[in-house]
Amino acid sequence: MARINDNYLKLQAGYLFPEISRRISEFTQANPEASVIRLGIGDVTKPLVPAVLKAFHEGVDEMSSGATFHGYGPEQGYDWLSQIIIDKAYKPLGVDLKTSEMFISDGSKCDSSNILDIFDLSNKVAIGDPVYPVYNDTNVMVGRSGQMNDAGYYEGLVYMPCTEENGFNPDFPTEKVDLIYLCFPNNPTGTVATREQLKGWVDYAIGNDAVILFDAAYEAFITDPDIPHSIYEIEGARRCAIEFRSFSKTAGFTGVRCGLTIVPEELLGTTIEGEKYSFNKLWNRRQCTKFNGVSYPVQKAAAAVYSDEGWTQVQEIIDYYMENARVIREGLSAAGIECFGGINAPYIWLKTPEGMTSWDFFDKLLNDCFIVGTPGSGFGPSGEGYFRLSAFGERKNVETAVLRIKEKWGK
Amino acid sequence: MARINDNYLKLQAGYLFPEISRRISEFTQANPEASVIRLGIGDVTKPLVPAVLKAFHEGVDEMSSGATFHGYGPEQGYDWLSQIIIDKAYKPLGVDLKTSEMFISDGSKCDSSNILDIFDLSNKVAIGDPVYPVYNDTNVMVGRSGQMNDAGYYEGLVYMPCTEENGFNPDFPTEKVDLIYLCFPNNPTGTVATREQLKGWVDYAIGNDAVILFDAAYEAFITDPDIPHSIYEIEGARRCAIEFRSFSKTAGFTGVRCGLTIVPEELLGTTIEGEKYSFNKLWNRRQCTKFNGVSYPVQKAAAAVYSDEGWTQVQEIIDYYMENARVIREGLSAAGIECFGGINAPYIWLKTPEGMTSWDFFDKLLNDCFIVGTPGSGFGPSGEGYFRLSAFGERKNVETAVLRIKEKWGK
Repeated sequence: MARINDNYLKLQAGYLFPEISRRISEFTQANPEASVIRLGIGDVTKPLVPAVLKAFHEGVDEMSSGATFHGYGPEQGYDWLSQIIIDKAYKPLGVDLKTSEMFISDGSKCDSSNILDIFDLSNKVAIGDPVYPVYNDTNVMVGRSGQMNDAGYYEGLVYMPCTEENGFNPDFPTEKVDLIYLCFPNNPTGTVATREQLKGWVDYAIGNDAVILFDAAYEAFITDPDIPHSIYEIEGARRCAIEFRSFSKTAGFTGVRCGLTIVPEELLGTTIEGEKYSFNKLWNRRQCTKFNGVSYPVQKAAAAVYSDEGWTQVQEIIDYYMENARVIREGLSAAGIECFGGINAPYIWLKTPEGMTSWDFFDKLLNDCFIVGTPGSGFGPSGEGYFRLSAFGERKNVETAVLRIKEKWGK
Repeated sequence: MARINDNYLKLQAGYLFPEISRRISEFTQANPEASVIRLGIGDVTKPLVPAVLKAFHEGVDEMSSGATFHGYGPEQGYDWLSQIIIDKAYKPLGVDLKTSEMFISDGSKCDSSNILDIFDLSNKVAIGDPVYPVYNDTNVMVGRSGQMNDAGYYEGLVYMPCTEENGFNPDFPTEKVDLIYLCFPNNPTGTVATREQLKGWVDYAIGNDAVILFDAAYEAFITDPDIPHSIYEIEGARRCAIEFRSFSKTAGFTGVRCGLTIVPEELLGTTIEGEKYSFNKLWNRRQCTKFNGVSYPVQKAAAAVYSDEGWTQVQEIIDYYMENARVIREGLSAAGIECFGGINAPYIWLKTPEGMTSWDFFDKLLNDCFIVGTPGSGFGPSGEGYFRLSAFGERKNVETAVLRIKEKWGK
């Protein structure tokens, strides 16, 4: 009798974004003439930059002749791509990595989900609240939790509230944990962590023999030179942290699909016999067995992001999005709506006006202003009363959206 | 204390193909002048066909303008791609599918691994012996087995020997199982299943409330019109089978990465409370949470495989590879080496001459003939004494390889 994985039935309702899509689709069918502005799901709007397009085409061209055709590539990604990323994205931070510590993938969502494969189910997991739902849901799906309780938390997982009181920077867990998910710049709150704060986490992880799963998908949006881009800028992190990076927001790869995971050689876990074992070896085995590498032309395109030309072009788009963030942040603040984030991060985390719930605000914003955002409560109970707007839209739309919100709620 | 997934330590040595790569690399470093012919890993050699290249480029071009840019796509793949595959690859077989039953992915290796996510650990699993190592290893990694015993089998998994005696077509398991992996045309033996044989499996699965995981990665190589391409050609299969397909061998996508999984709506599993639940819903949840869709230009390229032009071009290459298979099969047979497969399948499964072990033959073939193949024992204990050659090489190389083998072993 084929038994299903019953853990899936613990998950409440749909994954956040499909639910949002459903409501938008319902609205647009009822109001086909409404010009809906989407600042919700966090998808980018700007096309790929010319240097990336050129390399992408060249990669496709190479597939046209037997002499330059690429079949199965390394499951870990091509060394030349890893080396470029190390040279251009990590060395300038003072971080030295080997290519054998970098695993190219088809995106950070997959990696930050699949990473659980190499950890024993007995590990206690701490996640933020609010949090990127993937961290929460994948732990539920693998069976690390009980049911969701009335407060909206899954029994067995440790939640670290990120609130206005702690500046949306979580305190250390009050109970012993083995795995800690951190995301800076944060999705959804737009918060960043200072060097001292990250140092605190690294020391905490080493002191507690825990592993940090560090999601740096938004590091490219950091403009403050004092804010670390990588956890490996912190002494000791090679012994306690796995880092995820993505080309999705950095270079408009949401539909192209490329990301990477760093698993340092010094990072060791414990076997059931109490011996130490390399997580790098485990992740390598996982990828070799369950993954077959990233599309060759995509890897060529990804490498071009770090060419001089490509990086300049990509940086212009990042600046454009960050100007959007400023427009939203300042516009909403002027309308009397309290905003967080949007500096060093492409997300604005706003406090819903008039004490509305997140979903009420979602519906009101959609129905009255034709604007789509993401309800804070979709990211966890502490997100209730908050709302996420993304800076990835077209400037014109962003400005229109701000005007509509000002008209509706401005004093 | 971060605990590793100890199940990984049960895995013996490396995954088969990395071990082969290691030996090749050792040999070529010691013998840089040797012209090594690779008929091992099963990678294709022919470039992408013109129709696919054109669509791939067009897909990249669309990413160059805001108006045609594609960001996040559906996690399940674009409907237009699923619809084309249904219309062109399934309807002619008399198989009707909904697009909601098809999930486009970055390859069959990922899907046939990740599918285990939606099944409870308590399910008893049956796999062939020999078998594509991914089925075996992923079950070990997830904790469904004990240690490997002296015979080379992992305790707790059910192995179905595929031997000369049963025509490499396994008998039904002798104990009750819940999940059955079948691969036809088979990797590694090149065996196909007749309609009657598949009907037997479907009836068996329904009778035993089991689910068949049907790997049809090589269906495009079937030339005999009486051999089914899809398990859904068999009455009842929609209630008991998941099917995997791949563009890798069909259209030279080993480095491009695209595959698909079919989970019919009628396929139900059992919850811990004994209720029925849809595997389609579970797989959809799995993909929405842990996967972010396939690269847009890759999906455009995949759709072009099924254009009239694309299909004609792809078929020419398939014919070319199948002619290679004939050259190998007949050449080796003439040299007195017993061969199986190579008809309706791109793999030739040969009996090692002089009763050599599979790895001894591997080393001899590499050292004396500069030919790389795959040791049968790498696919399971019943593969000992056998050896897999793939038909995906260049004709010239294939002919040279056959000559070298004839010189070495021909009477």
